[in-house]
Amino acid sequence: MARILTGIQSSGRPHLGNILGAIQPGIELSEDPKNESFFFIADLHSLTTIRDPKVREGNVNAVAAAWLALGFDTDKNTFYRQSRVPEVTELAWYLSCFMPFSRMELAHSFKDKSEALGGEGDENVNSGLFTYPMLMAADILLYDADVVPVGKDQKQHLEFTRFVAKRINNHYGEEIFVLPEARIDADLMTIPGTDGRKMSKSYNNYIDMFLPKGKLKKQVMGIETDSTPLEDPKDPDKCNVFALYGLLANDTQATKMRENYTGGNYGYGHAKKELLELIMTKYEKQRELFDHYMNNLTDLHSKLAEGETKARDIATPVLNRARKAMGFR
Amino acid sequence: MARILTGIQSSGRPHLGNILGAIQPGIELSEDPKNESFFFIADLHSLTTIRDPKVREGNVNAVAAAWLALGFDTDKNTFYRQSRVPEVTELAWYLSCFMPFSRMELAHSFKDKSEALGGEGDENVNSGLFTYPMLMAADILLYDADVVPVGKDQKQHLEFTRFVAKRINNHYGEEIFVLPEARIDADLMTIPGTDGRKMSKSYNNYIDMFLPKGKLKKQVMGIETDSTPLEDPKDPDKCNVFALYGLLANDTQATKMRENYTGGNYGYGHAKKELLELIMTKYEKQRELFDHYMNNLTDLHSKLAEGETKARDIATPVLNRARKAMGFR
Repeated sequence: MARILTGIQSSGRPHLGNILGAIQPGIELSEDPKNESFFFIADLHSLTTIRDPKVREGNVNAVAAAWLALGFDTDKNTFYRQSRVPEVTELAWYLSCFMPFSRMELAHSFKDKSEALGGEGDENVNSGLFTYPMLMAADILLYDADVVPVGKDQKQHLEFTRFVAKRINNHYGEEIFVLPEARIDADLMTIPGTDGRKMSKSYNNYIDMFLPKGKLKKQVMGIETDSTPLEDPKDPDKCNVFALYGLLANDTQATKMRENYTGGNYGYGHAKKELLELIMTKYEKQRELFDHYMNNLTDLHSKLAEGETKARDIATPVLNRARKAMGFR
Repeated sequence: MARILTGIQSSGRPHLGNILGAIQPGIELSEDPKNESFFFIADLHSLTTIRDPKVREGNVNAVAAAWLALGFDTDKNTFYRQSRVPEVTELAWYLSCFMPFSRMELAHSFKDKSEALGGEGDENVNSGLFTYPMLMAADILLYDADVVPVGKDQKQHLEFTRFVAKRINNHYGEEIFVLPEARIDADLMTIPGTDGRKMSKSYNNYIDMFLPKGKLKKQVMGIETDSTPLEDPKDPDKCNVFALYGLLANDTQATKMRENYTGGNYGYGHAKKELLELIMTKYEKQRELFDHYMNNLTDLHSKLAEGETKARDIATPVLNRARKAMGFR
């Protein structure tokens, strides 16, 4: 059984792009009986960019509620908040003492983030951004993870993780850490937003399928379309509404709408209404569950707390292996 | 009551230079009823340079045994191993997310250490050396320390500590952290070694007053002297033996030996024997206690564990203030 570990950014209420592009594929992966999945919400990491406690708590809750609502099986797998196993910061210290500074300086991700913030000299480029790869390494090594799915931007961090783990294993002549394998995800499916660009919070072109019907309708009705008159045939492959409908519909539904588009006398307003209905029916249970968790945070947190107990039970002996080898216990 | 916090390097069995120059003055300071002293053995920090677990454990034990043997009052004060309150690494992460990277890069101490190791590109210049100032800041802030005695080389780190603490207090508009005051120690008394240079492990010119009599005698007899014949008068102020004797003796003893030196017919061998006897009698109880602790590590560790419980009781609410403000609990 392979242990697959994934950190989830706690960047707020997941939108349809996150759900179709990351959450549903993650859940499918976790259902494979050959795998055991560790998913954690990277709230410690979020402090490098988010300082507002309410924003962080809200983000964490929304992310957790979405994964649970979409059916992530927390009995088979392990689901936890990074900050609730703070032992990870202790391990990060140990790792950093074996990681050459000169290698850390090569991190692309730090360079990219610094540039985005105005260059390394900017006061907002904090030291946590620089040391973060050792926290990420600790996140992985603390749980004896076998496989870590990473996007291209995280590939180097996984190399750092393997490097420092090997270095420590070699130094002490024992297998303190399991060497994780990267699984480079082919570029994740890109979900188009309401304006045809990639769906993203920063473009404000997203659809939040957990919204109450009225607000959700507004978002769906706001999808940009061209000005082809109602009577004329339309090209489904050039339409933002159909792009989203096609991702959610079954084959019969998709074929039907395609025929409506090409047949004429079918307006974008009709398509939008069908898309709204599809979201509402397809995700009826998920929308209810999401609301339940957001309105009953005690329920949500007790689900997370179960995972945190499981996570700590794995983490403690691993941390103790490191402590013992290095002379700390 | 001012809380004074000091980290003690776990660099091995303290020699006479450490004892006279640092441990005894530290203990005197801790006896002041206006002060409460927190002393911790900086074993997490030692991982930046020491990787051998046996060396680290031996060093920690010897340092702890020496402080206890010399009478450090662990009821009035708090004495603990840094690594046994690993919450300090969690706080270090929080701090690092508020500390501009560009300021960290200005740390003199990192530059000095890197240069000593062969420059920043050297593989031994590890990332822990770079991030260490945030661990030190966490060491201080976690205990609401009021005063931190620092040598010149640590002055900047204390400025970093105040800077990041202020930044966080200002950001959240509440006094999460106590701002520590630096107390810049005038250069500590320099204790001469057996060759007249500053007593230091690296010069191998030290006297380990906790050694068994035979080995201690060898060290004392090895003190370098000039070749003035036995009969001739000698200048006590130019003699390494007298320099040490003078530091340990009371006035009567020192005056007497001074007279012997200037009177003639008094050899360096005589002076060395008197120095040996003085060490043995003056520190009889301390030598016994040191041996007791080194031979009964359970005793030693249970003393430390008491301090660790006290330390954690102070640390937990401070850490919780930070967690709460930032949105982690």
